[in-house]
Parts: sequence; C-alpha cells; structure tokens
Amino acid sequence: MTDTKATNITWHEGHVSREERETLLKQKGALIWFTGLSGSGKSTIAFTLEHALVEQGYMAYCLDGDNIRHGLNKNLGFSPEDRTENIRRIAEVGKLFVDAGIVTCTAFISPYRDDRNAAREVFEGNDFIEIFVDTPLDVCEERDPKGLYKKARAGEIKGFTGIDAPYEAPDKPELVIDTSKCSPQEASVTIIEYLEKIGKIAK
Amino acid sequence: MTDTKATNITWHEGHVSREERETLLKQKGALIWFTGLSGSGKSTIAFTLEHALVEQGYMAYCLDGDNIRHGLNKNLGFSPEDRTENIRRIAEVGKLFVDAGIVTCTAFISPYRDDRNAAREVFEGNDFIEIFVDTPLDVCEERDPKGLYKKARAGEIKGFTGIDAPYEAPDKPELVIDTSKCSPQEASVTIIEYLEKIGKIAK
Repeated sequence: MTDTKATNITWHEGHVSREERETLLKQKGALIWFTGLSGSGKSTIAFTLEHALVEQGYMAYCLDGDNIRHGLNKNLGFSPEDRTENIRRIAEVGKLFVDAGIVTCTAFISPYRDDRNAAREVFEGNDFIEIFVDTPLDVCEERDPKGLYKKARAGEIKGFTGIDAPYEAPDKPELVIDTSKCSPQEASVTIIEYLEKIGKIAK
Repeated sequence: MTDTKATNITWHEGHVSREERETLLKQKGALIWFTGLSGSGKSTIAFTLEHALVEQGYMAYCLDGDNIRHGLNKNLGFSPEDRTENIRRIAEVGKLFVDAGIVTCTAFISPYRDDRNAAREVFEGNDFIEIFVDTPLDVCEERDPKGLYKKARAGEIKGFTGIDAPYEAPDKPELVIDTSKCSPQEASVTIIEYLEKIGKIAK
C-alpha cells in the first residue's frame, strides 16, 4: 500500500451515479421486455440484438430462462403466485442492470398483463420498453422448438400458455414484432433504430 | 427497416459470451463480497472502491441494502430463513453481474459462515473474493452510524449482529481489512492491487 496511490483516489460517499456509468459506457440504461408465446422468437431476437449491440461496442445483457430459472428463481414453480414472483424478481434485477447503465433484455413469456404492468411500474421515464412478439400461435406451434406444444396438446403439460392457459396481449407495447413476417436481424434493426430514436444509444 | 442494415448484423445463436463482454470492457468479472459487523465500513470501502474503479474506466457496481432491500428482497424479513434467502438471491444476482463482466461489490453483514460459503459455491475459479472487514466491535459501536447499536443495547432491536446475534468470522477470506487501522482509500488500494494481481483488471 503506497500513500501516493491512496491519495490519488478521490473520496466519494455513496453509489456511483447512473449518469457517471452511462458516461463511461457512452449509452443509457434500458430494459427491453420481450413478451409473447413460447416459440414466438423472444430469445432469438434478444440474442441477435445483444450480439449486434456488443459488436457495436455497447454493453447489453440478456436475462432469460437459462440464467434466471436455474439461479435466482430456482426456488419458484409455475403456480400463479410463483409466476408473479418470477416476473417481479426479473423486473427488480433488470432495474439493477439498468441502474448500471446496461441495455438489458428480458425474454420470458410473461403472459399476465398485471405482472408486466407491475414490472413497468418498477422503471421510470422511457427505461421500460415492452416489445410484443406477436407471432401467431399456429406458427409458434409449428416451430415447437422444445417440443412443449406437442406435450401440452397431449395433456402431458398442464397450464401451457396459449393452449390451456391464457396469454394476455399488451395494451400499449412500445413495439410489436411478428416473426412470421420478419427475420430476427430485421427485428433487431427495428429495435436498434428505436433505441437510437429515444436516445439510449447514439445514432 | 433497411436491408443493408439488417444484413450487416452477424447472426449468432445464444447469449453473448462472458469473454466477449470482458474483451469489450477490458476487465474480467469478479464478485467482491464484503462481510463484517454493522458500522465496520463495508459500504464505505465498497463505494470508495467503486468510484476509484469507474474513474479508471472500469465497470464496477455495488449491491447493498439501498438497492436490494427496497427492491428484489423487499419481501424478505430478518428470520434465519429470510436471511439465508437474502444472501442466496444476492449471490445469484452477483453471478449475473459477473457474467456480464462487471466488477461487482456486495456490502451486507452476512453474519453466517454457511450462507457465505453457499454464496461462494455459486461462483467459479477466482471470481469470488471474500473480504472480511474486521473492525473491532467497540469501534463499530462507537461509530454507530445509524444508531442501531444504541437501540440494540436498549433492547429496542432484537437479534442484532454482534450484540445478541452471532457474527461468524470467515475462515479463509481472500483479504482482511481493519478500518480502525486504515482509511477507506487505503483499503481500496489494497483491493485494487489484489484485483490486478489475480488479473481482473490491468496493472
């Protein structure tokens, strides 16, 4: 430990502000909340967007089933209460990432309007961007990437969104994307242009 | 939406890797887990370190009572089960931040060895850095920044760590800091030198 080094550090109380981190990163924090049926393309778009942003030098991070369900939310099941708590925790973690200045994507079915609206309430200003991945059910079911629709139709899975559990479409999403009509790359461009428009990243 | 823009984006499946983000940030993710009594100086060191790192262009972020207890963990109390769940969630959120490549600090009393060891288990390699802020109880009680020791001594708060609830010191912390013998700036220098030594940030 050297005195020289120690005295070169400026004394600050409390957290580094979001603005200071955003200045460092040359971007503004945002939470991009993808919602839609299983197989609608939420994760695919989120990952395509994440890669595109990182390639351009922006800090982006995706929260999805892979890193949430096996970690933070591994003690939650699929009851209505647990689904609500699942979404609540994701929103709160997303808020921390946004506070860190990161363009954060969440890719979860999040079928209930109340849960998504509660998530929106956690954020301020234009930080929360709800994207309805409005791919028709028959297209999602045709894709069936994890074989879940087949199991749901066979009655092997109960309470599957779109089959025997409701999906409540957003009233006023910031963006609507139908992946039966555009590629994940095209969807990412739409989202990047939106982020530029609202000043989250530079044009 | 333009074809040109869309075709400029490279197609990738799955998450951006931790390594790609670390390359972008020119640092490696780490979780610096401060543990110690109330008033020992955990948050003060964490914030001083955070500011010092951000001033040097590194991405650092602190999780503490301010942003965790009122958000993600607002549905937890102070029972032993809730304390354990509190620490578990903090570790899991920390893991996400580390995966994002961020030097992450957590500043919580975290009095139980088993809870901290469970947190350590969530991480790999040298990602988890336990720092025991080993400031003597009488110094912490003299400082009493939130007036909590006074209330605990008066019996107004029950189960207060160090008074009528145990603090279990770490067996093998990566670093030990006694803030009755060094300033927060000096402590930060010690930690920065440690981060340099293990290759989390450049020398």
